[in-house]
Amino acid sequence: MAELPDEFPLPGLPEQVQIYEVGPRDGLQAEKEIVDTRTKIEFIRGLRQTGLTAIEATSFVSPRWVPQLADAAEVLAGIGSADGIRHPVLVPNQIGMDRALAAGATEIAIFVSATERFAHENLDTTVDGAIELAAPVVRQAAEAGIGVRGYVSMCFGDPWEGRVPIGQVLDVVRRLADLGCRTISLGDTIGVATPGHVQALLEAIGGTGIGMDRLALHFHDTYGQALANVLSGLRCGVTEYDASAGGIGGCPFARSATGNLATEDLVWMLNGLGIEHGIDLDRLVQLSGWMAGKLGRPSPSRVVTALYQEAAADQLF
Amino acid sequence: MAELPDEFPLPGLPEQVQIYEVGPRDGLQAEKEIVDTRTKIEFIRGLRQTGLTAIEATSFVSPRWVPQLADAAEVLAGIGSADGIRHPVLVPNQIGMDRALAAGATEIAIFVSATERFAHENLDTTVDGAIELAAPVVRQAAEAGIGVRGYVSMCFGDPWEGRVPIGQVLDVVRRLADLGCRTISLGDTIGVATPGHVQALLEAIGGTGIGMDRLALHFHDTYGQALANVLSGLRCGVTEYDASAGGIGGCPFARSATGNLATEDLVWMLNGLGIEHGIDLDRLVQLSGWMAGKLGRPSPSRVVTALYQEAAADQLF
Repeated sequence: MAELPDEFPLPGLPEQVQIYEVGPRDGLQAEKEIVDTRTKIEFIRGLRQTGLTAIEATSFVSPRWVPQLADAAEVLAGIGSADGIRHPVLVPNQIGMDRALAAGATEIAIFVSATERFAHENLDTTVDGAIELAAPVVRQAAEAGIGVRGYVSMCFGDPWEGRVPIGQVLDVVRRLADLGCRTISLGDTIGVATPGHVQALLEAIGGTGIGMDRLALHFHDTYGQALANVLSGLRCGVTEYDASAGGIGGCPFARSATGNLATEDLVWMLNGLGIEHGIDLDRLVQLSGWMAGKLGRPSPSRVVTALYQEAAADQLF
Repeated sequence: MAELPDEFPLPGLPEQVQIYEVGPRDGLQAEKEIVDTRTKIEFIRGLRQTGLTAIEATSFVSPRWVPQLADAAEVLAGIGSADGIRHPVLVPNQIGMDRALAAGATEIAIFVSATERFAHENLDTTVDGAIELAAPVVRQAAEAGIGVRGYVSMCFGDPWEGRVPIGQVLDVVRRLADLGCRTISLGDTIGVATPGHVQALLEAIGGTGIGMDRLALHFHDTYGQALANVLSGLRCGVTEYDASAGGIGGCPFARSATGNLATEDLVWMLNGLGIEHGIDLDRLVQLSGWMAGKLGRPSPSRVVTALYQEAAADQLF
């Protein structure tokens, strides 16, 4: 099957995209199973070997909130650095920032919410409060020459509030852009986006003068819509997409266990569209199959399900 | 979650589509579990109550080939007819046609292959041979005023031949159109299509003068691409889509157990796009959850996975 899919470009789509791998952070933080530090390091080193160049490594959120990633400093020390590969880490506040810097982080990501209710439930603050919490961290990073990514949760729907008005998302995105976030990742935290909604939001953001080159799209596949939504994002000119190797992870507030868009499913579509991404799909499938074994459950990725079972017995990793 | 997804139409898409339900036939014929006749009848009656208007009921293929559907005549007798609902049945040849007519079929579907190797492996004939086998059946149906749908397998890739040239598909589609098939369903039997490939094939078919209103698209979700491919089909103006309730079934020749596009996942996207289809998603999810229980395994549909587990305990069916 290595010669498939056929390559059929669609006119008007980008020639190249950046895949931003969130498996080690967004994936593992939402898995019930707590993975040991050594396995995390092997996983991240394996991801590097697939050609991925942006791999979010861990989170310096309080271990009381996210015990899955309590070993953030050890993971960062264990993976070291690799030429041409970025390893951003998530930081929630000043304490997290201090820990991240002490651990040698060279790029960070902060997170805020587009809805009041999720800001309250997940961050114990308000929409404004979350942005105010992030502001000094972003400024400090800028002074240290450290790139900052800003995540916005609940950009399409909220499990409590339902519909999320586009104007509300726009306001938060604009504030993160003004703060100096290099990239702003629009999160469909509960997976309810559909392709027209994606286009409407992107057009509205574009209308404020924020370029598509400053945006990333972060889809969850809860209702199977993630790839159709990526296609919509590609048509609008967005060139950065978050995905999780093997589809690991999810949102504890979403209704189902199906979480992040699987990197493999995204790579398959990009291969078909002839869009460059630099990733070796076969290696990635092998790695995700191995990781699914560590997590003790089948991978939710369709591509991993289809290809791993027939893969060569000798592991690449 | 009933108020989600938000409705955001995309300019240029059809306002309404026909969903052609293939679960009772294409789904059940590929399941290992042989479902009893009573359950099949309950399933089809349940599907009718969801608002579906085209439900392929069974297949008059030889029971030696497809033991799962050996009870075709009993199923057709058991479901009877219902106002405004079509129940096509699959017929492979003259013997199947005679059995179908004797059982009271009022609409049929025939099938051919776009590739020589699949024609050989699945039908024990050639591409030409399959069309010659179908020709008298189609003519007989036309004389009896019975509508005929033509399925073309392996329109995008073939597990043995790999890439399938568009010209090869075009030739088969044209011959089915000339024979008098009312609708021609383009099958991605092994799930390897991607959105650019879909557009390229549809544009090529359109170039021969065959209208998009004579086409249906039949995607498998083996690599997670089915909905992105539907989106591509919608942009090209195709208004009929095959799907299987709960995503049951698959192709025994494909690499994985993930088979047909789940009707629920399709309905979710159409709801978001504001495209009319007439189906009650909640009822369908309940029915598919019930059917997954009968099949003894979880539904591969993302929407069923997400919504069934929290559904009201009292069954609608």
